Formats: sequence, structure tokens, C-alpha cells
Amino acid sequence: MFYIIDILGTIAFAISGVLIAINKKMDVFGILIIAFVTAVGGGTLRDLLIGQTPVSWMQDITYTYVILASSIFAIIFRSKINYLRTSLFLFDTIGIGLYTLVGIEKGESAELHPIICIALGTITASFGGVIRDILCNEIPVIFRKEIYATACILGGISYFLLKTLPLDGNLIFVISGVVVIAVRLLAVKFKIGLPTIYKD
Amino acid sequence: MFYIIDILGTIAFAISGVLIAINKKMDVFGILIIAFVTAVGGGTLRDLLIGQTPVSWMQDITYTYVILASSIFAIIFRSKINYLRTSLFLFDTIGIGLYTLVGIEKGESAELHPIICIALGTITASFGGVIRDILCNEIPVIFRKEIYATACILGGISYFLLKTLPLDGNLIFVISGVVVIAVRLLAVKFKIGLPTIYKD
Amino acid sequence: MFYIIDILGTIAFAISGVLIAINKKMDVFGILIIAFVTAVGGGTLRDLLIGQTPVSWMQDITYTYVILASSIFAIIFRSKINYLRTSLFLFDTIGIGLYTLVGIEKGESAELHPIICIALGTITASFGGVIRDILCNEIPVIFRKEIYATACILGGISYFLLKTLPLDGNLIFVISGVVVIAVRLLAVKFKIGLPTIYKD
Repeated sequence: MFYIIDILGTIAFAISGVLIAINKKMDVFGILIIAFVTAVGGGTLRDLLIGQTPVSWMQDITYTYVILASSIFAIIFRSKINYLRTSLFLFDTIGIGLYTLVGIEKGESAELHPIICIALGTITASFGGVIRDILCNEIPVIFRKEIYATACILGGISYFLLKTLPLDGNLIFVISGVVVIAVRLLAVKFKIGLPTIYKD
Repeated sequence: MFYIIDILGTIAFAISGVLIAINKKMDVFGILIIAFVTAVGGGTLRDLLIGQTPVSWMQDITYTYVILASSIFAIIFRSKINYLRTSLFLFDTIGIGLYTLVGIEKGESAELHPIICIALGTITASFGGVIRDILCNEIPVIFRKEIYATACILGGISYFLLKTLPLDGNLIFVISGVVVIAVRLLAVKFKIGLPTIYKD
Repeated sequence: MFYIIDILGTIAFAISGVLIAINKKMDVFGILIIAFVTAVGGGTLRDLLIGQTPVSWMQDITYTYVILASSIFAIIFRSKINYLRTSLFLFDTIGIGLYTLVGIEKGESAELHPIICIALGTITASFGGVIRDILCNEIPVIFRKEIYATACILGGISYFLLKTLPLDGNLIFVISGVVVIAVRLLAVKFKIGLPTIYKD
């Protein structure tokens, strides 16, 4: 079940990378690298920071196959990918929920402070996009127009609050993931963003 | 004592990150990330290169609190931060002295060559700013207008020269740190920079 | 023998970094950093991903001396470096062949899947240039106009195909390296690139 969500999220992340790389007129090699980085960059940074090497995607070849296949699919059908927009957005959002929780659990097994665990979860879910934007020579979009980091952080806080209650671990995992997903869906639907500190 | 300097340096680095991120019109999330990266980026790169993981700031939650508090302070009082300029410059300079020496000592305990240790010290003190500039989509300022890398390197050389004399370890640490601080203060006061290789 | 190729490749990579940094009007410190990153960036990223730390160049001071010496040479004779262009291109190409195979072998000793090993080889040979371009605030040239990643990948595939035959390990290493070199030389001579997916 979690594995399927993971794969769907990977597909959505990889395809979003492909579309951005095509926009930058990259060649096929560049497109594949951007797809990879978008899909596995956050988890890679997390693994490096806590010293869990070789990093995850190197240990399970499935991710490589999934990213290659969905990238080639997206390159071929790039003019028609718009029809999949809603599905991709959903996969992406569910993926973010899962990745946040996976990052938090990895932080916990490295015995890190809850706040650091939440930071790791947010890094897992959002830094693939940050590295992608840097490779595309853009200021990371998430630093200018926050899209989902707040959802990750609120999901992380829920996780540690729920852990103070006598609940089953899997249930806590699922509820917190749903918090991430719900916050993001509501934020997109009602166009809620972080309060701005600029006047104009 | 060293811990207090460390915290003061962290505050100065974080606030400098906040000001640059505000200049780039980032949102609150982006500002906090830039503050973090500026403050802990150099030490994080050092820890990754020598394989000391989880990286330092993940193991001591104090840094997170200090960076969050000084960032929020800097965001709120951003129009008045100019009054603190001299203090911040001093904290920053003292911090650089300390971080250089901390990096060198970590290199020594990993049994690396003195030149590599000096490189690690310089990375610790200066690569937070490099990563910050990359995230802000700028060529790192330190590569164009050298600000303090020379000070770090000269302090590092002093450290290894002093170690050939029969002196106390703490004394060597302090003297070398003072060399870093003094070189930087003199360079700023007398506007001394690296000789240019360009004609115009 | 391999060590000599390694050093020649390091020289070629460092000098190419110097020339690009001069183009960006960096100061001497920036030029040296770009030379370093171009020469050792790929191997450093590989070592980090598989958790082999301290990273290679920190454990053998020779690289540092070679990079410093060739950078200073290139800075002084920058207006005359054009006379060396053919030699540098050859060193560079032979270096790429070697680095690809070194990366693959490191992947193998970490017991990674052949496809991941080929990715590691390609990273070793090409990501120094990627990090250099990011530090210079450019979209990595290798993502827009593929130069040698295909050569690395084809050499890597040859390596694993040859391993199915009853051949000596060193021989396989050399043949696969020659494949990388030959593909790159032919691609440059006949101006063969990846097929474009754009219409104009």
C-alpha cells in the first residue's frame, strides 16, 4: 500500500520535472536528470544529512525504472499531458504526505529531536523541487510562493501530538499523512498562502 | 565561552541571511531556509565531506531555536536592523574566526593533511554564504570579491605554524582565531583585497 | 599508469575550470574554487552518495597540489592556453574514460545494481562540470548540449556486457575506457549529438 503511493508520487514528481526541463529547452539527457532529481532529490538530501548511505534510490532499482519509464512517457506525450493534470496533482499531493512521514520516521530512528524530524520530513517532501530549480537556474519556487512546506510542517506537528495519545503507530502515520494532504488541498482550493511581509 | 561565540556567530549569520532573502522578495518560509543555510551550511558541508553524520545542527537543537528566534526578530525589525550593523559585523567576524578553527580541528581528528584541514576550516566559515548565494540565484559573492577566505587561510596557516612550538593547545586555538579576526578587520578597514588579474 | 591518466585528467579539468571562472571575472579565490570543483566535484558527489568518506581528494594531497599548480599555471598563461587546446581536450577525454570506469568499480564494490553503477560512473565523469556551472550561475551545459554523458553510458554498458565473457578484469576495464574515449572523439569529430525533441 505505502509502496504503491510511493511509486505514484515518484511518477508525479518525475513528470513534473520533465515538463519543467522541456520548458528550459534541455536535451533528453538533461530532462532525465531533472526528472530524477525532482523525484529522488529530497530523499537523497535527507539520507546524506543523517548518513544513511548508499542513498535509498541506489538500493532499490525500481525507482530508476519508474522514473525512466514515466519520463519517456512524458517526453513522448508532452503535448497531451494536460489531460492528466488532475491525476498528477493528486499523486503529487498524496506523495508529499507519504514522503513527509517517511522523513519523520527516518529522523526518529536516528534518534533526532522532533523539530529536526519535522525538518527532515519537509526536506524529503520539498527539496527535490529545490534542487530541480537550482539546476534550472531559478530561485526555488517554494521560497517565493510557498506551496506545501506548511502542509508538511502541520502534518509533522500532528504526528508528534498524536504520539502523546495511546494510538496505534500505523494509525498515527495515516492520520498525519492525511493532515498534510488535506491542508494542501484546502490551501490550493481556497488559495490560502503564507501571510506576506511585503507591502505592495 | 566558545559556545557563546558560536551562538553569537550563528545569530549574525542567520540575520545576514534574512536580510538577503528579504531583498530577493522571498516569503517567510524562504527567508527561514536562507537564514538556516547561511548559518549552518558551511558546517553541514564540512560534516558531509568528512562523514560525520547526522550533521552537527541536527544533534543540538539549540542552533535551531537560535536561528528561528533571530530570524523572526530580524523579519520584524528589518527596517531598524541597520542600528545593529556594527555589532552584527563584529559577531560575524568573531564567528568566522571560531568556525575556521573548529573546521581545522575536525579535520585533524579525521587525521587529514594540514592543507586539507585549512580547506575544511575555510569551508566551515565561508560555504554557508556560498550555498545561500546559489539558492538566491547569484554567483557567490565570495568568488568575485573575496571577503574573508584569505583571513581563514592565514589563520589556518598560523595554527599549524604555532603547533610546531611548545605551546598550549587552547592558546594556539585562540591566537589563530585572533589572526583570522585581525586580518579581516584590517582588510575591511584599509579596503585591502586580493590583487586583481583583470586589467580594467 | 592509471594514476598518470588520473593526474592528466585532473589537470585538464582544473584548467577548464580556471578558464570558465576567468570568463566570469572571478577573483583568484573564486578561480581556485571553480578549478577544484570542476576537477573533484564528480568524485566527491559519488563518494557522498555511496558514503565513502572522507571523500577521495581529502585523503590524497597530490590532487590538491596538482590542481593548485595547474590553476596557477593557467592563470598566468591564460592568454596562451589556446596553444594547448588539443592536448587539453585529449587529457580531458582520456580522463573521462578513466573516471567513468572508476565510478563503476566503486559502485560494484558497494554491491550496487549495474544500472546504478553506470549512473555513478557518469556522475563521476560529468558532475564536476555540473557543479561548476551551478556555481557560475549557468544552466549546466551538459543538460542543454549533451557532450559526453552518452559516451560514459555506452562505455558503462560495454563494461557489463564484457563482464559476461571470460575476460581478464584489467582488459575489460581498458576496453570499456577506450569505448568512452572513442565514442566521444567520434561524436566531436562528426558533430553527432543526441536527437533533439524540439522542432525549431
